[in-house]
Amino acid sequence: MSQQHAVNGVLPKGKVLTLETMNPNVKKVEYAVRGPIVQRAVQLEKELREGAKKPFTEVIRANIGDAHAMGQKPITFLRQVLALCAYPDLLEDNKFPEDAKQRARRILAACGGQSIGAYSASPGIECIRQDVSRYIEKRDGGIPSNPDNIYLSTGASDAIVTILKLLICGEGRGRTGVMISIPQYPLYSAALADLGAVQINYYLDEDKCWSLDVNELKRAINEARQHCNPRVLCIINPGNPTGQVQSRECIEQVIRFAKEENLFLMADEVYQDNVYADGCKFHSFKKVLFEMGPEYSSTVELASFHSTSKCYMGECGFRGGYMEVINMDPDVKTQLTKLVSVRLCPPVPGQALLDLVVNPPQPDEPSYNTFIKERTAVLAALAEKARMTEEMFNTIPGFTCNPVQGAMYTFPRISLPAKAIDKAKVKGKVPDMYYCMRLLEEEGICLVPGSGFGQRDGTYHFRMTILPPAEKLKIVLDKIKNFHIRFTEEFS
Amino acid sequence: MSQQHAVNGVLPKGKVLTLETMNPNVKKVEYAVRGPIVQRAVQLEKELREGAKKPFTEVIRANIGDAHAMGQKPITFLRQVLALCAYPDLLEDNKFPEDAKQRARRILAACGGQSIGAYSASPGIECIRQDVSRYIEKRDGGIPSNPDNIYLSTGASDAIVTILKLLICGEGRGRTGVMISIPQYPLYSAALADLGAVQINYYLDEDKCWSLDVNELKRAINEARQHCNPRVLCIINPGNPTGQVQSRECIEQVIRFAKEENLFLMADEVYQDNVYADGCKFHSFKKVLFEMGPEYSSTVELASFHSTSKCYMGECGFRGGYMEVINMDPDVKTQLTKLVSVRLCPPVPGQALLDLVVNPPQPDEPSYNTFIKERTAVLAALAEKARMTEEMFNTIPGFTCNPVQGAMYTFPRISLPAKAIDKAKVKGKVPDMYYCMRLLEEEGICLVPGSGFGQRDGTYHFRMTILPPAEKLKIVLDKIKNFHIRFTEEFS
Repeated sequence: MSQQHAVNGVLPKGKVLTLETMNPNVKKVEYAVRGPIVQRAVQLEKELREGAKKPFTEVIRANIGDAHAMGQKPITFLRQVLALCAYPDLLEDNKFPEDAKQRARRILAACGGQSIGAYSASPGIECIRQDVSRYIEKRDGGIPSNPDNIYLSTGASDAIVTILKLLICGEGRGRTGVMISIPQYPLYSAALADLGAVQINYYLDEDKCWSLDVNELKRAINEARQHCNPRVLCIINPGNPTGQVQSRECIEQVIRFAKEENLFLMADEVYQDNVYADGCKFHSFKKVLFEMGPEYSSTVELASFHSTSKCYMGECGFRGGYMEVINMDPDVKTQLTKLVSVRLCPPVPGQALLDLVVNPPQPDEPSYNTFIKERTAVLAALAEKARMTEEMFNTIPGFTCNPVQGAMYTFPRISLPAKAIDKAKVKGKVPDMYYCMRLLEEEGICLVPGSGFGQRDGTYHFRMTILPPAEKLKIVLDKIKNFHIRFTEEFS
Repeated sequence: MSQQHAVNGVLPKGKVLTLETMNPNVKKVEYAVRGPIVQRAVQLEKELREGAKKPFTEVIRANIGDAHAMGQKPITFLRQVLALCAYPDLLEDNKFPEDAKQRARRILAACGGQSIGAYSASPGIECIRQDVSRYIEKRDGGIPSNPDNIYLSTGASDAIVTILKLLICGEGRGRTGVMISIPQYPLYSAALADLGAVQINYYLDEDKCWSLDVNELKRAINEARQHCNPRVLCIINPGNPTGQVQSRECIEQVIRFAKEENLFLMADEVYQDNVYADGCKFHSFKKVLFEMGPEYSSTVELASFHSTSKCYMGECGFRGGYMEVINMDPDVKTQLTKLVSVRLCPPVPGQALLDLVVNPPQPDEPSYNTFIKERTAVLAALAEKARMTEEMFNTIPGFTCNPVQGAMYTFPRISLPAKAIDKAKVKGKVPDMYYCMRLLEEEGICLVPGSGFGQRDGTYHFRMTILPPAEKLKIVLDKIKNFHIRFTEEFS
C-alpha cells in the first residue's frame, strides 16, 4: 500500500484521497439528470453570455422537472405565508389576507421560540405531521392515517434513501436486492450503488403505454433469487420518466405480488396531482392496500413518498416532503426515528410549505379563489402541454411517443440510423448520449438520454420535461423535429 | 433463512424489515443529543400541558444548541431579505430598507426563473459560492479562496457526512479509520457507525482546558494501525461539547501531524464566531495551513465546515452551510460534485441565508447599525453567560468546570457517589444518564449525559448549552446546584 510506504519516507507521498483510494461505491453512482449533458449546457450558457456565436440564442433546459426555472410562477398563498413566517413583523401588515396570517401564526406557534430558525423535532413539526395525516385521510376517502407514521423529509429523495438504507444488509447471495423499474428515475440506481445493494431491473411495457406487468416482476425476481435476496419493490406512479398512470387493478396485482414474495413496498407518488389523460386517475398504494382487506392492510409493509417539488407547486428549492410508513415493525420505527435525528431535522421552511400544501385555503377563506385559480391554471396548462407533446412527437418519422398520462415528462422512443450508432461508438459515446449532445450543440436544447434511466437493449429514448411555457414548448418541439430529420439524413 | 421458508408457505411470514433483518450499521448509530433524555422531556412537556403536577412548571431544554428555541430573536436584516426572496411582491413595499431589497434582488437574479423555488446548481448558487470565497479571503487576511472549492450544504452535518463517505473504503485491517476527539460531537460517531468506518478515539486533556496534545494523537494512531488504516483526522474548533479554542501553535502541530501521517484533515469550524475568553482567538485551519508555507499549503488535504445554525445567527431550522475543500484531487472533486447532485441541491432558503451571513450590511448601508447592534448584543450576552456558567459551576462541591472559551456549551465534570453509581447499574443505566434523568424528573432540566459524547472511563460529565436567557440560565444553574447537593446527600 503506497500510503504505508510513504509513511516510511521511502516514496513521495501521494494524496490521501484519490480515485483509487476513495469509496468504491461512490464511484459507481451515476445521476444522468445532472450528468455531462447538463454540464455542457452550463458551459454553453456561459459562452453565450460572453458573446460567443451559436446556432441558438438561449439554452432551454428541459432536462429536469424544475417548474419555476421554466417560468411557472409560485402560488401566491404559499409565498405569502412563507414571507410571514420568515419575518413575523409582517403579521401587522394589512396587505396580507387573514387566512395567510392565521396559517403563519399556527406554524410559528408550533416552532421553538416561535421561529422557523429553531430546529424542529426530527420527524418534523408535530402539527404539520397531523395535517399531513388529515390530508391523506381525505385523499384516501377516510382510510385512517396516523401522524406517528408520518416523517417529514428534505424533499422525497432524502426519505427514499433513508428507507433504502434501513433495508440493505447481508453479503454475497444474501445481499438485499431492490426491484426497480426500467426506465427508472436515477435516484434509485444511484442510491443502490451508494449503499452497495443489488439492483433488480423489471421492465415496463413500452408497447402498452409503459404499463407494469406482474409477469415481468415474477421473471425479474426469479432470476434475481439466484444471486441476491430480493426484499424491496420500488414503484413510481405516476411514472418518471415514463408518464404512465397505474390502474387500480395493476396496483392490486403489485400488492398481491409483494405479499406473496414478502417484499417491502416503496411507492414513489410525488406526481400524484399530475394526472392529465382522460380515464386515468391516481390511486394511492395506501388506499388500494386498505381496500384489499385486513389480509393485506395489516401485513404488507409500505412506505409512500410525497414532495413539495412537483404537482402544481413546483417548489423544488425548498426541499420539502414527507413519507408515510405502514405496517412498519415498531422497533424498526424506533431505529428510523433515531436515524433521522442524526441530521437533526428537515429544513423548517420546507416543512412550513408542506403544511400549506396539505392544508390549503378553504372555500370560506379569503385566499381560496385566487389559490384555486392559480392551481387550476398550472394543472390545465400541463395537461395541454402533455397532449401537445405526444401529438407533435408522433408526427416525427422515427419517433414513437406514448401519451403523457401523468407526471411531467415525455420519454419518446427514437430510431437512430445504424451509421449514427457506429459514429457514436467511434466517439466512445452511448448512441443516445451522442444524439442528445448533438441536439444541445446545434439547437441549444438540453435533454437527458434514455440510457440515463435504463431502456431495453437496442432501443433509444430521451427524457424531456413538458414544463416550458406552451409557446416555448412549441419551439422546442419544432427544433427537435428539424434536428431529428437532419440527423437522420446525415447518417442515411 | 426464515424468509425463504415463508416463501415456500411452510412458516407464517414475518415482517420483511425487523431489528434482525435491518441494516446492522444503522442499529449501531447513536445520537445522544436527541436520545432518551429528550424523548422523556417531550413526554413531560405533554404531561404538563395536560395538567399533570410536577415539581416544576416547565421543561428547560438545555440539551441542544438551538438559539431561537431558547428565546434568541432572529437578526432583522436576515429575515427581511428572506421574506423578500419568498414573496418578491414585497420589493415594491417601502417598509424594507434598500440594502435588504438589493440583496434579495441579487439572490433572485441568480435563481432559475428568479424564484427560490427552483433547484439550484448542486454545489450551490454560483454567486453565493463566490460570496463565500470572498468572505473566507477576508477572514483569513487575504489568503485566496477559489469558489470552485466551495460546496454549499444542508447544514454542516450534511457536508461532514459527504466527505466522510468519500473517504471510507477497504475491509478488515484495511478499513478506513477516522480519528475523532473524545469528547466528540456525536454526529461523528453516528456517521462512522452508519458508514461502517473504524472510529479512532483521541482524548482531549481536561486538566489543560480540554486542549489537544499531539502526543495523544500519536498514541491513538499507533494503536489504531494495528487494526485499521487511519486516513482521516477530525477536529472541532471551537470545541463541541468542550468549549475550548485551539491555539495557533496547536493547530500548526496538528497540521504537521496530518502531513507526517498522511491524513485527510476535517476541520469543523461552525463555532468560529463564538469565541468569548480573553486571549483566545479563532484561527482557521485554512489560514494556518497557508501560513506554514507551500510544503504544507500545496499538499495537506483539508475540508473545513461552516453553518448558519450557530454564531450570532442561530438559524438552525434553515439548514444552511458550506464547506471549503483544499488540495482535493480534481478527479475526486468530480466525484464529489456527482455525489451531491444525486440530492439535487441544498435548500435554497438556507443558501440565501448563508449569502447574507457572508455578505452582511456594510457601514455605508442603511441596515448596518441595526445589524451590528443586534449581532453584538447576541455575542456579548453569550460571553457573559459563558463566564457566569463556569463561575457558578465551580462553586458546586464535586463540580470541576473548564472555562467556556468558545462555542455554546459547558461540559463540567461531576463526581458521583459510589452508591449512586451502583444504583444506576442496578437500574441498567449508565451513571451519568441516571443522573441526568433524575435531574430531568425532579427539576425539569434537560441535559445530555457525558457518555453520549465520550469521556475517560470513570469520569462523568454532562453537556449543557449556555443559550437560555441570563435570568433563566441563573435559575437553571441554581436548580442544578440544589439537585446535585441533594443527589450527593442521598447517596452519601
